[in-house]
Amino acid sequence: MNGVAFTVAELAERFDLGVRGDGTCRITGVATLAHAGAEQVSFLANPRYRAQLQTSTAAAVIVRAADADLEGAPVRLIASDPYVAFAKIAALFEHRPAPSPGVHPSAIIAATAVISAGASIGPLCVVEDGAVIEDGAVLGAHCLVGRDCTVGAQSRLVARVTLVERVRLGRRVLVHPGAVLGADGFGLAFERDHWIKVPQLGGVRIGDDCEIGANTTIDRGALEDTVLEEDVRLDNQIQIAHNVHIGAHTAIAGCAAVAGSARIGRYCLIGGAAGILGHLTVADRVTITAMTLVTHSIREAGEYSSASPMQESRLWRRNAARIRHLDELARRVAAIDKGSTQ
Amino acid sequence: MNGVAFTVAELAERFDLGVRGDGTCRITGVATLAHAGAEQVSFLANPRYRAQLQTSTAAAVIVRAADADLEGAPVRLIASDPYVAFAKIAALFEHRPAPSPGVHPSAIIAATAVISAGASIGPLCVVEDGAVIEDGAVLGAHCLVGRDCTVGAQSRLVARVTLVERVRLGRRVLVHPGAVLGADGFGLAFERDHWIKVPQLGGVRIGDDCEIGANTTIDRGALEDTVLEEDVRLDNQIQIAHNVHIGAHTAIAGCAAVAGSARIGRYCLIGGAAGILGHLTVADRVTITAMTLVTHSIREAGEYSSASPMQESRLWRRNAARIRHLDELARRVAAIDKGSTQ
Amino acid sequence: MNGVAFTVAELAERFDLGVRGDGTCRITGVATLAHAGAEQVSFLANPRYRAQLQTSTAAAVIVRAADADLEGAPVRLIASDPYVAFAKIAALFEHRPAPSPGVHPSAIIAATAVISAGASIGPLCVVEDGAVIEDGAVLGAHCLVGRDCTVGAQSRLVARVTLVERVRLGRRVLVHPGAVLGADGFGLAFERDHWIKVPQLGGVRIGDDCEIGANTTIDRGALEDTVLEEDVRLDNQIQIAHNVHIGAHTAIAGCAAVAGSARIGRYCLIGGAAGILGHLTVADRVTITAMTLVTHSIREAGEYSSASPMQESRLWRRNAARIRHLDELARRVAAIDKGSTQ
Repeated sequence: MNGVAFTVAELAERFDLGVRGDGTCRITGVATLAHAGAEQVSFLANPRYRAQLQTSTAAAVIVRAADADLEGAPVRLIASDPYVAFAKIAALFEHRPAPSPGVHPSAIIAATAVISAGASIGPLCVVEDGAVIEDGAVLGAHCLVGRDCTVGAQSRLVARVTLVERVRLGRRVLVHPGAVLGADGFGLAFERDHWIKVPQLGGVRIGDDCEIGANTTIDRGALEDTVLEEDVRLDNQIQIAHNVHIGAHTAIAGCAAVAGSARIGRYCLIGGAAGILGHLTVADRVTITAMTLVTHSIREAGEYSSASPMQESRLWRRNAARIRHLDELARRVAAIDKGSTQ
Repeated sequence: MNGVAFTVAELAERFDLGVRGDGTCRITGVATLAHAGAEQVSFLANPRYRAQLQTSTAAAVIVRAADADLEGAPVRLIASDPYVAFAKIAALFEHRPAPSPGVHPSAIIAATAVISAGASIGPLCVVEDGAVIEDGAVLGAHCLVGRDCTVGAQSRLVARVTLVERVRLGRRVLVHPGAVLGADGFGLAFERDHWIKVPQLGGVRIGDDCEIGANTTIDRGALEDTVLEEDVRLDNQIQIAHNVHIGAHTAIAGCAAVAGSARIGRYCLIGGAAGILGHLTVADRVTITAMTLVTHSIREAGEYSSASPMQESRLWRRNAARIRHLDELARRVAAIDKGSTQ
Repeated sequence: MNGVAFTVAELAERFDLGVRGDGTCRITGVATLAHAGAEQVSFLANPRYRAQLQTSTAAAVIVRAADADLEGAPVRLIASDPYVAFAKIAALFEHRPAPSPGVHPSAIIAATAVISAGASIGPLCVVEDGAVIEDGAVLGAHCLVGRDCTVGAQSRLVARVTLVERVRLGRRVLVHPGAVLGADGFGLAFERDHWIKVPQLGGVRIGDDCEIGANTTIDRGALEDTVLEEDVRLDNQIQIAHNVHIGAHTAIAGCAAVAGSARIGRYCLIGGAAGILGHLTVADRVTITAMTLVTHSIREAGEYSSASPMQESRLWRRNAARIRHLDELARRVAAIDKGSTQ
């Protein structure tokens, strides 16, 4: 990891955790229960790994109070949410050399761009006219910050991020490589026998503490902005169309897609490869399971699904063939029912 | 917007529209009905926003003839298709400074590449051997035009576009950041216990007036070319496999995928995250709804679907469990039916 | 193609094939049966193209022994697997000028990076601290090899590939443009009312002879590595989450997604846009058809599906509406059945 060390007691004090066992035990890193070594701390969040507590060679393990008394386990750190405590402890051991402020000589900065003295601009970045890079922001190699874009304080574009035009990132936003924010929305009008392009005059607004995954795309709005409120978390390869609005603290898993002008609430969880059709509204605290297609607005918190069940293809093909005639089948049942109850 | 201004009468004349109200009214931009201000024009295409006409503070609004007489509405511009008229008017107010022709000093141009004097090559572009950039073409920052690729006249690669090899773009083609055209098709042959790669010797041919979205991928053909005819419109994150052929004026929404050698007709509309299996044919004027999997060729124009309906997970799980035994259920119904009608 | 020529007899000897017809016939390239010309060789692997054998103007065609005696066909090369033989022959005609070793003057190489003298680093590449580029490795334009990454001998990053951090590629690995390997896994812990990021401390390990498609993403592991064993073949726009493990010789088609910590066996075939949920296990030699969602572990080899059948929307809507009440329908049938058999 990064050469730092703590005692179990120091960790407990820092993060307000209980201790069961030898608090002087030295910790220099984190690992899984199965592979942790003599100076590493692990955690037990998922009960199905509980058996590993007995055999783990970890120096210490973060557990719930209910698991604090297990015989033969390593030193225990007791947390109300072991995964949260683990995340905070792991961050101590993350090796990330802070880049020094300044502009790499190979970067190309437009005359009217404003780069804070505390910002760091990596090799081969391009910053275009009217762009603003605020204090403590970090651009890794190959980033492009287009016209009239703002990168907020302490935000980090890991590398090869593209902000096309009129994109404003808040503070502490993290964007992974290949993400494209602020490309034209997909706006077309059909005139007689061909398409004409509808200008996309809006922008993109990303709140504080958002995270945007690798190769995710977020288009500019047509007239108004596409908006992510604060602490929205997007995984990789997600597509967010123009004028979508996503509420604070919503998290979306990889390969999901949200069509134009959809409005998603706060604290939602959207599963991988799920789809949300355009102009719909999804309430706060809605969970959508993987590969579900949301075809109408969801007004109430809850969990929603549509993905078909998997089977051996040989069986599935028979059932799928029946789906194609399900309406007929239902009518036949209704007819029988009527007949048999007369 | 961009400092230009028109009167309503000037717009009407330019685009052959009717006027109801004060033609001297000054217009300096476009906006939504809900947010348009004193010098902005809006439009009403979707009837469910009609109520906003009464309260809109827009200077003018583009409507169908049927909506021309509404009391209390702003000045009206009357169009047979308000959205088309809006697209054209909005384009007048789009601020896009034309890049000056020439090659940015940081771009790297191979000795045998041919760059038209009227083309503009942005910072940190790479143009490889045998590539041709025609008159009026614009390459934004970080583009890569690989060996033997052609960028047709007036085409625009917004930024960070990759043309790998043997890709020919027609005229006025627009390609968004992160798009990769001309990568190897996914060609593999299985020999005993391992894969061997099948060389991908074809190219990619993109017709005039096509648009290719951010992070969309279009692979080179195996032996012949992958082809998009003219005016094909692809949204973001679409995957077009080797040797696909897409007919003119077809539009495809985000995250759709077309497998190898599929042939899609003209004037089709393919919904988001739809999939089309390899070697299939889809007729002209076919609409595929979102997340549909096209598993057999479609010979007739029409609309096709396969996505399951969404429900609360609690209900969905019960129904999904029944799908797994639907064939049995159908057999049972047939047996009952036979019994009850004997 | 590339100016090289062989006789049919030379090809037969090189790849241990039979010949029927004139072995002196000269071959300078490959093509499809439908379009092959006087000096080109084609192949017949798919029986539905057999009729084209009679009309093909190919100089020679690679066929199975069963097709060797067809009257009127061109000279035949006889192979146990014509597609495999074709792949090998086509490779002879692939034009790929080997880049000369050395570092392009525009590339930016960190002081502690180690570049083998036999490696070739293209224009505008960035190689960061601690990275190793082994002998014969080729980086096309715009590649980024991040901290502590290794590119194994003879591997090729076609162009614009991003290796973020702690990514180790084996030998002869081929990575296409836009691929991002080693970005942070999507690890979040929810604390009261907001997300906190879980550090992603693992890496990515890619075995020998793997191929990674354009715009595909493979995240770093949280604590341990994300692993692809040797000869794994990934198409474009695939998402591989943190800590996934994929067995040797497995091939995955475009737009598929594998969630965190899933373990996929050897010699699997995963169809396009399929999804595999997190923490599942898939046995060796499993085939998953396109757009299937794998919702539970698969313990036995075989083929598995879940995608619904496509219909005209008008019919589909009726059937889909019935799916929403399938459980009820099944209960009604059970009730009738009970009634009718009493």
